[in-house]
Amino acid sequence: MKRRQLLAGLGAAGAAGLVGGARAQPGARVGAWDMTTDVLVVGSGSAGASAAIEASRAGAAVLVIESLPRFGGSSAMSAGVVYAGGGTALQQALGVTDSVAAMAAFITGMSGPQPPLEKIQLYCEESAAHFDWLVAQGVRYGDRLYTGMTVPMDGESLYFSGAERAWPARELAPPAPRGHVPLAANMTGGRALMEALLARVRELGVSLLSGVAAQRLVVASDGRVLGMEVSMGGERKTVRARRGVVLASGGFIHNREMVSLYAPHLYQCSVPWGNIGDQGVGINIGIGAGAAALRMHQGFAIVPLYPPESVLSGIVVNAAGQRFVPEDTYYGVLGDAIAYHQQGRAWLITDSGSHLPPQQDNFPQVAQANTVGDLAEQLQFPRGALQQTVAYYNRNAGNGEDPQFHKSAAFLRPLQGPPYRAWDLSVERAFVPAHTFGGLHTTVDGQVLDGFGDAIPGLYAAGRTASGLPAAPYIASGLSVGDCTFFGRRAGLAAANRSVT
Amino acid sequence: MKRRQLLAGLGAAGAAGLVGGARAQPGARVGAWDMTTDVLVVGSGSAGASAAIEASRAGAAVLVIESLPRFGGSSAMSAGVVYAGGGTALQQALGVTDSVAAMAAFITGMSGPQPPLEKIQLYCEESAAHFDWLVAQGVRYGDRLYTGMTVPMDGESLYFSGAERAWPARELAPPAPRGHVPLAANMTGGRALMEALLARVRELGVSLLSGVAAQRLVVASDGRVLGMEVSMGGERKTVRARRGVVLASGGFIHNREMVSLYAPHLYQCSVPWGNIGDQGVGINIGIGAGAAALRMHQGFAIVPLYPPESVLSGIVVNAAGQRFVPEDTYYGVLGDAIAYHQQGRAWLITDSGSHLPPQQDNFPQVAQANTVGDLAEQLQFPRGALQQTVAYYNRNAGNGEDPQFHKSAAFLRPLQGPPYRAWDLSVERAFVPAHTFGGLHTTVDGQVLDGFGDAIPGLYAAGRTASGLPAAPYIASGLSVGDCTFFGRRAGLAAANRSVT
Repeated sequence: MKRRQLLAGLGAAGAAGLVGGARAQPGARVGAWDMTTDVLVVGSGSAGASAAIEASRAGAAVLVIESLPRFGGSSAMSAGVVYAGGGTALQQALGVTDSVAAMAAFITGMSGPQPPLEKIQLYCEESAAHFDWLVAQGVRYGDRLYTGMTVPMDGESLYFSGAERAWPARELAPPAPRGHVPLAANMTGGRALMEALLARVRELGVSLLSGVAAQRLVVASDGRVLGMEVSMGGERKTVRARRGVVLASGGFIHNREMVSLYAPHLYQCSVPWGNIGDQGVGINIGIGAGAAALRMHQGFAIVPLYPPESVLSGIVVNAAGQRFVPEDTYYGVLGDAIAYHQQGRAWLITDSGSHLPPQQDNFPQVAQANTVGDLAEQLQFPRGALQQTVAYYNRNAGNGEDPQFHKSAAFLRPLQGPPYRAWDLSVERAFVPAHTFGGLHTTVDGQVLDGFGDAIPGLYAAGRTASGLPAAPYIASGLSVGDCTFFGRRAGLAAANRSVT
Repeated sequence: MKRRQLLAGLGAAGAAGLVGGARAQPGARVGAWDMTTDVLVVGSGSAGASAAIEASRAGAAVLVIESLPRFGGSSAMSAGVVYAGGGTALQQALGVTDSVAAMAAFITGMSGPQPPLEKIQLYCEESAAHFDWLVAQGVRYGDRLYTGMTVPMDGESLYFSGAERAWPARELAPPAPRGHVPLAANMTGGRALMEALLARVRELGVSLLSGVAAQRLVVASDGRVLGMEVSMGGERKTVRARRGVVLASGGFIHNREMVSLYAPHLYQCSVPWGNIGDQGVGINIGIGAGAAALRMHQGFAIVPLYPPESVLSGIVVNAAGQRFVPEDTYYGVLGDAIAYHQQGRAWLITDSGSHLPPQQDNFPQVAQANTVGDLAEQLQFPRGALQQTVAYYNRNAGNGEDPQFHKSAAFLRPLQGPPYRAWDLSVERAFVPAHTFGGLHTTVDGQVLDGFGDAIPGLYAAGRTASGLPAAPYIASGLSVGDCTFFGRRAGLAAANRSVT
């Protein structure tokens, strides 16, 4: 339904108007602008930095504002993994075979019902070139492959960052390592990524202002976004953006009211993960200008079952004492199953060969016994349920089979004897980082759309302020930062190239 | 965050403005209005009719527009059940014991994480009075109680319309029958309800126009909603609404693109249930004016397992051959478990004592065998899984127990012998009506809110155009029409009483 056509008779001229609350500020009321730029980027995480780089390279004057004292957003807190494939330079250098089709089949087949096909396809087709771009911006990568399941710590820069090798993914497409990790000390790949991108931003002459908070858009009478009202040291200032505004201020995991309203399943998770700037301001400012927001209930809930991988020889059960996932799947898939589909509750059952090191503190041990029956009784499981689950699992594992969930052979063996231990994987009690994926409805070029699918001229969004590649379940590390950088670039470029009549 | 305060310095005067696409039309451009009223109600279902009645009784001139040729909306297609309790006149006349606390505990405890507590509490406190109001409007009810699980067909007007007697609900609160059904022939309670409400609307002198489609709001420069642009016989007309606009045009189940974008789990359901007017227009018009929309992924997916209740002595299993619900729960709870949590797939297993009448066509029989093992093989279930589920179930059922899911004693017995049959309950292949619950963010008085929680002056919403009482899972018939009528009344009253300065 192209409602825009209804406007034909109305023309575009006329006085500017304010649409209530923080919803928008009328251009006609602004008078003299305090600042003027071509492209205003709100947020300095990987989406905002990538947008700024491409907008600047396209010849636009660019201003990046960050509400916090420091730049980098949640991306700087992350491991900096970018999910890329189809034959990236690093994959080829390490002799890894991959294809765009395999990557697309994995993401499309595993990302839940009605995945965003257009964004997935484009991302898969261009992620190899996107990796080259990251290298060209100065992000450094090592030259070794890591075959373990967690973010590599010893200078390896390519690994299986998702559920590729677990069932059912391995039946959908040939597994390939696609997690590209910047060269950095333990888990600080995100900082390394952002240091490189922000250095590039500065080198290009982009203006960066910290401690400047976006308040609301300034909109012309015909709906064009003219700029933004911001708060600088408590003062209200207006910024004119000749070509466009790119909202890239992250998600809303730290806005508890929004999480409760929009993403109730994430509300109980013990660790709202992300930079404190994830307050949903960019999303709400977009909504205020008439934008639609999609998949607001989705996000990741990570239940870090491994390392050590030895625990994957244990079993994970729900409150009915039943298994419900292959234990060796990606911990984002496990977390989704628990948070969204098991009412937030699950337990890891380990044996003499699979229990955790005493110093692990990701989830508490809640029972220990010499028999499965005693363990089940301590857990107050339904009588006989866990015993029967273990008997069935052991019988099949003894034959090297897992008919229900197809755990990989590497981790498949009968539970072999006491001490049996139970560990609480509940999202409230275990260490369960959660982050939101819902955001503004955008095209592949970051153009923000309203409820009728019509563009809001001059308004762009990227990263977790937009609804992008990441969905529930979250199937691989690197899809979020990959989406931020890839679609952030496209949003910045589209804004810079917008023909302003 | 009360962003509205930022406006203090701006004042409310000034020219009106247009915010793009269908998002809003500027008051200043309207010139002479084609029609004028105090309260404009968009939609003629039970929410719109209830809003119109209360607005009119409060002394406002009211115009109701309906895009379709006939009035009544999806409510007229429904069974007309209104969920009410805490001691309604009918409950008392039939000697039913109930309390506000029990009703609230049931709805709050069963409606999923982070339920809308304020709306639930108010609804429970006032639903007995709301039932009196329905009677006062001319809705007729019988004087008999029905103890079965489905909508009564023989003039009974009170029944257990939800999951009250199933586990775990019966442990949360004393079960009470709260489904109030208008006196009507088979399942036409919704028509009876709407005939009464619409007759009352006409009797009050409210103007009703059919074939008039809402296009977009007309908004003043300070954000006040002034009226609406509508389409009448292809012509664009403007309607001034001195006091307010109530959006009550239903949900979006028939807008397949919206269902795909917002409610992917409902997309696969075989029967998009509702009046064809459920296109999401009211929701999108509200979004266009800067409104927030909540719980857009939620809705009901009904898997009509019963009648006959005899099938509840069978078991329902997932693709892993495991049970996952008490089979005797409300079919909305069963449907939610299948559609949202079992990837849309499940099977009913029946035996010689529980199989369905040959003429049932709600779901296809997909296997028949003389042993559970043969049945499982035909279904290609994981080897041994169904056999073990049945063995565990039978062993406990023989002792009158269901340790995992606590099926009620009335339906609990071991599967007793061949022929064993499997029936496909997949949401794509079974008869599975689905309807959306997501809608505009509103206060208990129907005031529409933006992303920052600020009101959009003059804009109200009710029924499935708003996010109200119904959540996922849908736990009882009558919660949706109950919400439509109860909060529709409050929205109409609030609009009529709005102080216009």
